[in-house]
Amino acid sequence: MSEQIHGGDIYTKAYRIDFSANMNPLGMPRLVAEAACEGVRRSENYPDVHCRALRKAIAGSENVPEEWVVCGNGAAELIFALVWAVRPKKALLAAPGFAEYEQALRCVDCRITFYPCREENGFALREDYLEYLTEDMDLVFLCNPANPTGVLIEPELLERIADRCREREILLVVDECFNGLLERGEELSLKGRLDAQPGLFLLRAFTKLYAMAGLRLGYGLCADEGLLERLRKVLQPWNVSLPAQMAGIAAVQEREYVARSRAYVAKEREFLRQGLRVLGLKTYDSMANFLFFSGPEGLCERCAEEGILIRDCQNYRGLGPGYYRIAVRTREENQELLRALGKILEG
Amino acid sequence: MSEQIHGGDIYTKAYRIDFSANMNPLGMPRLVAEAACEGVRRSENYPDVHCRALRKAIAGSENVPEEWVVCGNGAAELIFALVWAVRPKKALLAAPGFAEYEQALRCVDCRITFYPCREENGFALREDYLEYLTEDMDLVFLCNPANPTGVLIEPELLERIADRCREREILLVVDECFNGLLERGEELSLKGRLDAQPGLFLLRAFTKLYAMAGLRLGYGLCADEGLLERLRKVLQPWNVSLPAQMAGIAAVQEREYVARSRAYVAKEREFLRQGLRVLGLKTYDSMANFLFFSGPEGLCERCAEEGILIRDCQNYRGLGPGYYRIAVRTREENQELLRALGKILEG
Repeated sequence: MSEQIHGGDIYTKAYRIDFSANMNPLGMPRLVAEAACEGVRRSENYPDVHCRALRKAIAGSENVPEEWVVCGNGAAELIFALVWAVRPKKALLAAPGFAEYEQALRCVDCRITFYPCREENGFALREDYLEYLTEDMDLVFLCNPANPTGVLIEPELLERIADRCREREILLVVDECFNGLLERGEELSLKGRLDAQPGLFLLRAFTKLYAMAGLRLGYGLCADEGLLERLRKVLQPWNVSLPAQMAGIAAVQEREYVARSRAYVAKEREFLRQGLRVLGLKTYDSMANFLFFSGPEGLCERCAEEGILIRDCQNYRGLGPGYYRIAVRTREENQELLRALGKILEG
Repeated sequence: MSEQIHGGDIYTKAYRIDFSANMNPLGMPRLVAEAACEGVRRSENYPDVHCRALRKAIAGSENVPEEWVVCGNGAAELIFALVWAVRPKKALLAAPGFAEYEQALRCVDCRITFYPCREENGFALREDYLEYLTEDMDLVFLCNPANPTGVLIEPELLERIADRCREREILLVVDECFNGLLERGEELSLKGRLDAQPGLFLLRAFTKLYAMAGLRLGYGLCADEGLLERLRKVLQPWNVSLPAQMAGIAAVQEREYVARSRAYVAKEREFLRQGLRVLGLKTYDSMANFLFFSGPEGLCERCAEEGILIRDCQNYRGLGPGYYRIAVRTREENQELLRALGKILEG
């Protein structure tokens, strides 16, 4: 049994508030939960293997053709499926980054180059990233905004990265799972390039945006029919449960909830950031629904004693002890976290 | 978009009764559905990545150590994961058989030998199967009872197959997904060999037994800790949804329901079989919760006109037109199917 290395491990720890998983603090919309329960009631049937109604709903909300949409049992499943479908020999990852890119690539014995996101650069990608996009590179995973730092890729640099990948025929996978809660998410997405760049694959999740992590639902957008066909071949036919399909169809209707969530998260993120700074903790430039900060070692354990889970980031490649990630939650919960941190740092 | 090649495609066809998917005709137990809905309500959290409570429940009901249990997003996910984890060079399948074994093996460019289950043998495995277990074989998939025929492997032959696999260090994967609705399921399972044969992997599903196909839940049993560790590496951490985990925990409590289901299915299977025979259709020796039969071509389309879905088996390797599979359903539904078939065959 390997240890739990992710956030959201509420199953072995007594806790009151979970800041370690990055959910929308407004919680799952009522109609989404009801749709999922209706999905349970219909689950004597298999789910639609083609996710037709769900893909149609996503295509409508994303304004892309249905044929470009592939659904997964969470975006994480699609990370693995992409790697199986492509079987890259050489890939580029940014460090620190989401552990599953590396886990998936290791399964196919892929050689991995790591671009170091340096603290002195605020963990942002810099222009020297382009030099890592060598001719022999097969696949690149980029997360925008990044996990765990929440830092955005500068839009002009991202365009240049995408151009370079296209020139060199590198499959560019941009994980936009945290895009949905950004205030200017649409502008910051590479969606507009999909048509012109079949070697671009965007990953998106319902998990965080609609606070439905337990239901497992993510999707990919890509214009390369050949790649999508290879993906379908490495995926089992019934990979997306019926409750998840029905929840997803309900979720894309929730435009007002999304708008409200974005505004709420932006406000609370700055509230939390300000609070961390006042406590003397070093924050970085997260624009996501979570904050990344550094401070004394052992904060995770000390917070747990106060019934609060935060994400210890020392197991991320390129980081060490003293780095933490916290979700942006409700005002009351954020205040409680700041109070707990204040008490810990005083003591 | 590839065509739907499986049963249970209720999404494109108007129908009244679905005989094409092999669910328990008694339907999903109420407490299982309630547990799944409770899982929906808790789905603002990630599911437990280690499925600890579920694995404990399965281990208790199967009377095996928890460490032997691995859970999947349906047994189908575990078929693919096994193939990725093992990456066999040569594998043996029986034909006709479940299409996903072949689909998964093709993904890793595995050479596949097919053992032909011959109609003149009632589609049963014969002793000559042993000759196919050559030294160079890495992996064998066997389905017991088989899908789509429902035929059991003769117990003594199965023991000899397992012995041969152990001698030759062939990983033997026995898909026992239809074991749960057999009357003598425990006797017919290879579970008793797990401890002595680490190269034995048993696949089991909640799907059929508890009529919860839409929720996606299956599991594997194996005593080889190394193989299980490799499996975990090719699986995403959150592969089993929270509703599925909670439904599974509730399901293993349903002992009375299972006993009742077994007796009901056995009785109705013989009722249906007798009915098919009276209509002049050729039935085979299915002991599962579905029947396999042959008859005139085009029965599938004709039944669909009557609002009844049956499984056309002509796309199975080794079969041609005129082979069909039907689930055993309730007495009323079975009678309706027999009436429809009678009308069609008369016409």
